[in-house]
Amino acid sequence: MKFCSHCGQGVTEHIPPGDTRPRYICDHCQHIHYQNPRIVAGCLVTDQRFVLLCRRAIEPRHGYWTLPAGFMENGETTEQAALRETWEEARARVADQQLYMLFNLPHINQVYMFFRGQLVDESFAPGEESLEVGLFSEAEIPWDQLAFPTIGKTLKQYFLDYRQQQFPVRMADITRPLRGGPA
Amino acid sequence: MKFCSHCGQGVTEHIPPGDTRPRYICDHCQHIHYQNPRIVAGCLVTDQRFVLLCRRAIEPRHGYWTLPAGFMENGETTEQAALRETWEEARARVADQQLYMLFNLPHINQVYMFFRGQLVDESFAPGEESLEVGLFSEAEIPWDQLAFPTIGKTLKQYFLDYRQQQFPVRMADITRPLRGGPA
Repeated sequence: MKFCSHCGQGVTEHIPPGDTRPRYICDHCQHIHYQNPRIVAGCLVTDQRFVLLCRRAIEPRHGYWTLPAGFMENGETTEQAALRETWEEARARVADQQLYMLFNLPHINQVYMFFRGQLVDESFAPGEESLEVGLFSEAEIPWDQLAFPTIGKTLKQYFLDYRQQQFPVRMADITRPLRGGPA
Repeated sequence: MKFCSHCGQGVTEHIPPGDTRPRYICDHCQHIHYQNPRIVAGCLVTDQRFVLLCRRAIEPRHGYWTLPAGFMENGETTEQAALRETWEEARARVADQQLYMLFNLPHINQVYMFFRGQLVDESFAPGEESLEVGLFSEAEIPWDQLAFPTIGKTLKQYFLDYRQQQFPVRMADITRPLRGGPA
């Protein structure tokens, strides 16, 4: 950030009075430009022991497999964001969705929230950001071609929980990128 | 938003190619300025049937009672944000914190996340943003002087759950301001 989005003059980074962190502050109008983490919302869409994966048609991680997810927009709920992303990326409809996994990724200022839900029918199809979409059993999942650590952790937890048929909300921190891929 | 924070030239609001929503886009450098919801993280600090409340020394809702909470910062986890806010506003230390209540407030682009945790000792005290801090039983809570709907809903749920000694993670939407106060 170099310029104030309110008045167009230059900003400098310093700690405002009464604060403890450096902020971008306008030299002219004194507006403080706070920056905060963003929420990525998505769905773990399941059909009994099968889960829905999308192969990414966009960077980062073009060609790798992911769960449908994306940045939450203003004016929607986390659940609406997760269902919207699932429709946009996988043309899949979901029922009985429940909050399932929540990841903190402080090194990239993101919080991931995955909802677990039932696939309503098998009419899914790749949206614009996906190359292909499919249902996978645990043995069929391309474990070494998953796009992000959050995806593998969510899938592994699901298959563990599926054996017990207990799906409590779980929270985990991913504090640095794993070797070989982005967080 | 009137000016591009990257190059200082004017922005206009229109739907970018391949998108479905209007964004602020720089007329000069074409940078798209996305705007996303923010997370408010806080703690429901408990000591058996007592909960810790702070009376606000700042607007909005100066003088009303709240749970310690505030905007999550870049570089921290939701849990760290909740504990930091609890220290800043109530000088209280918390143990065994667990995610408890999650609220969507789409009309103000916020997601609230409250962690439930045990008060470690009774050395709490008002921080700079609080007038006073105290422990309250259900009967003692100033129900008509709570700062925000999220606070009352979290407290009511806690006393219900306390009777059962079961505290599942719960999610709720608050889709418009309730009469008589901000959301």
